Amino acid sequence: MTQTTELSVRQRVDDWLASFEAALRARDAPAAAALFAPGCYWRDLVAFTWNITTVEGRDGIADLLTTTLESTDPAGFEVTEEPSEAGGVIEAWIRFETATGRGTGLLRLKAEGAWTLLTTLRELKGHEEALGDRRPQGVEHELARGRQSWKERREQEAAALGRDEQPYVVVIGGGQGGIALGARLRQLGVPAVVIDRNARPGDQWRGRYKSLCLHDPVWYDHLPYLPFPANWPVFAPKDKIGDWLEMYTKVMEVPYWASSTVRSATFDEASRRWSVVVDREGGSVELTPAHVVFATGMSGKPNYPELPGQDVFRGEQHHSSRHPGPEAYEGKRVVVVGSNNSAFDICGALWEHGADVTMVQRSSTHIVKSASLMDIGLGDLYSERAVAGGVSTDKADMIFASIPYRIMHEFQIPLYEQMAERDAEFYARLEKAGFRHDWGADGSGLFMKYLRRGSGYYIDVGAADLVADGRVKLAHGQVDHLTEDAVVLEDGTTLPAGLVVYATGYGSMNGWVADLVDAATAEKVGKVWGLGSDTPKDPGPWEGEQRNMWKPTQQQNLWFHGGNLHQSRHYSLYLALQLKARYEGLPTPVYRLQESHHAR
Amino acid sequence: MTQTTELSVRQRVDDWLASFEAALRARDAPAAAALFAPGCYWRDLVAFTWNITTVEGRDGIADLLTTTLESTDPAGFEVTEEPSEAGGVIEAWIRFETATGRGTGLLRLKAEGAWTLLTTLRELKGHEEALGDRRPQGVEHELARGRQSWKERREQEAAALGRDEQPYVVVIGGGQGGIALGARLRQLGVPAVVIDRNARPGDQWRGRYKSLCLHDPVWYDHLPYLPFPANWPVFAPKDKIGDWLEMYTKVMEVPYWASSTVRSATFDEASRRWSVVVDREGGSVELTPAHVVFATGMSGKPNYPELPGQDVFRGEQHHSSRHPGPEAYEGKRVVVVGSNNSAFDICGALWEHGADVTMVQRSSTHIVKSASLMDIGLGDLYSERAVAGGVSTDKADMIFASIPYRIMHEFQIPLYEQMAERDAEFYARLEKAGFRHDWGADGSGLFMKYLRRGSGYYIDVGAADLVADGRVKLAHGQVDHLTEDAVVLEDGTTLPAGLVVYATGYGSMNGWVADLVDAATAEKVGKVWGLGSDTPKDPGPWEGEQRNMWKPTQQQNLWFHGGNLHQSRHYSLYLALQLKARYEGLPTPVYRLQESHHAR
Repeated sequence: MTQTTELSVRQRVDDWLASFEAALRARDAPAAAALFAPGCYWRDLVAFTWNITTVEGRDGIADLLTTTLESTDPAGFEVTEEPSEAGGVIEAWIRFETATGRGTGLLRLKAEGAWTLLTTLRELKGHEEALGDRRPQGVEHELARGRQSWKERREQEAAALGRDEQPYVVVIGGGQGGIALGARLRQLGVPAVVIDRNARPGDQWRGRYKSLCLHDPVWYDHLPYLPFPANWPVFAPKDKIGDWLEMYTKVMEVPYWASSTVRSATFDEASRRWSVVVDREGGSVELTPAHVVFATGMSGKPNYPELPGQDVFRGEQHHSSRHPGPEAYEGKRVVVVGSNNSAFDICGALWEHGADVTMVQRSSTHIVKSASLMDIGLGDLYSERAVAGGVSTDKADMIFASIPYRIMHEFQIPLYEQMAERDAEFYARLEKAGFRHDWGADGSGLFMKYLRRGSGYYIDVGAADLVADGRVKLAHGQVDHLTEDAVVLEDGTTLPAGLVVYATGYGSMNGWVADLVDAATAEKVGKVWGLGSDTPKDPGPWEGEQRNMWKPTQQQNLWFHGGNLHQSRHYSLYLALQLKARYEGLPTPVYRLQESHHAR
Repeated sequence: MTQTTELSVRQRVDDWLASFEAALRARDAPAAAALFAPGCYWRDLVAFTWNITTVEGRDGIADLLTTTLESTDPAGFEVTEEPSEAGGVIEAWIRFETATGRGTGLLRLKAEGAWTLLTTLRELKGHEEALGDRRPQGVEHELARGRQSWKERREQEAAALGRDEQPYVVVIGGGQGGIALGARLRQLGVPAVVIDRNARPGDQWRGRYKSLCLHDPVWYDHLPYLPFPANWPVFAPKDKIGDWLEMYTKVMEVPYWASSTVRSATFDEASRRWSVVVDREGGSVELTPAHVVFATGMSGKPNYPELPGQDVFRGEQHHSSRHPGPEAYEGKRVVVVGSNNSAFDICGALWEHGADVTMVQRSSTHIVKSASLMDIGLGDLYSERAVAGGVSTDKADMIFASIPYRIMHEFQIPLYEQMAERDAEFYARLEKAGFRHDWGADGSGLFMKYLRRGSGYYIDVGAADLVADGRVKLAHGQVDHLTEDAVVLEDGTTLPAGLVVYATGYGSMNGWVADLVDAATAEKVGKVWGLGSDTPKDPGPWEGEQRNMWKPTQQQNLWFHGGNLHQSRHYSLYLALQLKARYEGLPTPVYRLQESHHAR
């Protein structure tokens, strides 16, 4: 009978939560761990561990709790809506509180016990964000002599920043990552400044090749607090995104220094503050924040290959990040080295403008059609139908975050099998053209490849067909050298060229640390991104979480922010809360600070 | 038993709708009218009447239907959610369709029959807005030579506008009204341009005195499509609103000509198009739209009183709309003529800056404290608690629109009695200071005063206390003349002054028509705003709706848009739909085109 089954599901969750809380209250870590199934996972975003953490197995659970229980002092576990059950797994949205904060979470229960638990810190007690019913009044309804207007306060604040007032956080990089984090910090009242070399927020997009658009659909891309409106296109053109970022920065009052370049950042162990030197307004400014966040972007530090003959080549050569667009190359012969996202975008744009294009594929690439990825890969969580079905952006982010990285590929593989079937004809044509296609190391497709190595794929928005039918030519192999007017591959293939574009990817974000801090710190911090999955470009050991992202690193008070728009939106909250807690002097004992296993 | 009662409520609504639809299908107007209670009201926004219309009583219903049934061809009446009942009145949200469109509505049923019915057109079949699951793709996922980028398309569009491409609609005035309407027209694919003399959207706010903020709370103020975020202050300071409007105009792609001044607009009866002459970029441009919309603002055409001695007065004098703010007047003696919103704002700001201020009250003013208005006046519909309770902005707008103007005061009076009680002490102090306070002609307070005459009130954000305790001095009576350095009232009271501010209000919007078209057209169109309530400044006869707002006027293809932010948001949809229908050549038979009863 339905009603009994419903009670049963709710009751099971309530019972589990009650037992869990009782064990926690008794500080009995083993008892709490025993409530989990074998093969369990607990992912905690800040609430217990002041870290971005996944533990596995009952031992992992017990270890986490043994270390963190006393200082966390968790309580008040309860469901926030009726749990649901499907395929023997109960899903329950929960909330709880800790000594210093309040959090939410998602619990998956099997018959044997808890299978996955996600706990996230959402706010700090006494430092709740001024949103909704706590939104600022805007105007004091009492007149007083010398009262400043909002505009005057903002101008004064801007004038004092870096002079009379030092920021607590400096965010290096004002693309969507820096901007989203800046908005969160503003909301939390943490004095900060976001620094970018470009003249206007959004220029990081405006300045790119003209055909560039977002390849992730709009529901995936919302920034914090201010979602894109209902008429925003599914895939936003670069200039439209640029305009949005500029507007967002302004109306969200993100403190932003444009046309400013960070030259160096030096940490003083004694004062525990950084000295950040910034070129700005024709001079140099020293900022002394407590924390520095590198939001320089996954696609930040270009890999520019060094090849013999580059100095004799008479044509143009540049990395894809410096590609100005196709307009100047009509009728020219262009060789694009690389076969991933940037390569395809650039080849497509060049072809549209009448260039003679050859793509040099050095290794296999995973391609999915954007529409298929959108439908099959993201549709359950980020789509109109998801929204209509009650899956808000926050819920979607939480559901995504609740899938343990260790087993995520198991969820992904069937989706990509569907995509392979849906687009079988497309893949057959690609193969026939000689394109080397892969589905990721274990068939788990795009998102795993993105999480593991941040590269090696193309979300097809049309350019793949050009390769499939030969309108863009394809060559294979490593580049051996350049001559005055050609690219020569290892097998001797000679490709005459007036332009060579190195779509050869980007290095680990700690390359920026090497540039701005020093090599030793970059090495100490280590490789950024990747899971340690022991797949190409993601060597083991298993990290369990993204290396160095959104959490404490081996360099005190140095952090990284970034990822795609979904990650930037979601994880900016947890990074901002960690910074806010330090700003307020709250205790933030870090559980299992990550070790660095790779230098880059 | 609850379950029987619920079935009963739903069943009663379903039965009523079925009977109503049957009568409509049979084209039996009297039968349909008989389903209404005596003392009933039907307000139709475009769907049936291609007008903004309220009819009263069974005769009114029958007349509306007799005229409109055949062309409207309505069908598909059904509830969109479970109806509710309170105090013997059932409220039911409904939807329906017509020959050309789809609509929504709100029905109130009593035992005797339908009491109030609101029907609104929401979309035109075949011309649905590209929102949500119809949002534009953003990028064609198929490459083609010569494909333009979004930016190129926008630039081309902007260059062609007014040269190779004529807009279908010219919107005169680019404040929040023009901008909201511009966004709606853009969404509906109606070629339009919004024209404003200021250099940037939002300047209409930036250029005002520095203490100016919105007096309506945020939930009331959202613009279409893109609501203010959760951290937006309750009462936005002028510069913050200015920034929002500027960015809204950009990201919503509103076609906007700044720094442009309309000089004239002439209607050609033969071609049925306007010739609109615009000063722009150092020259003159002629636009030939089919329609012109005056969005010049309720507070548009200043009333500048002509008084003897203005030419000999040695100090400064200006209308409140030209007041630069208080900064230059510290220590100066200032006389502010008027006692409504602008007067209080300006007196308050001047006092804060150390001016010596006297307010000259010529007639009574209705004052409510902003917090009380927000709580008691608006709280059920526009507040955090309303939102939390499921009253979305659209629902709130619909509920508000569903209350017939004829009886709206009955709903308002109790609210103002509450406010009088809550703030009794405040009103007592005001009275003691000699301030002449009123509660509207019939005690129905602010909103009715606003709807009837658009003036005569102050939403108190602090300045009233200055008058109550004498920090701002109070004088009474009409101004007789000015001397070289004083304002002299009719009773001889002499008020020395270095600055006189005429906070003497604004004229009817058709004053702009007189300026830009001609006096004859302005007179033909007649007074704009007001209900014909036969209360001060709102002479009868009863109009039933706002004169000339958002609907066809006595001048073909001339329209007015505006109102407060809530009206601008809600009614911009209906005005845009009327324009879209004409743009698409759909039949738009207007029921009971309003007559003009007053010239201004």
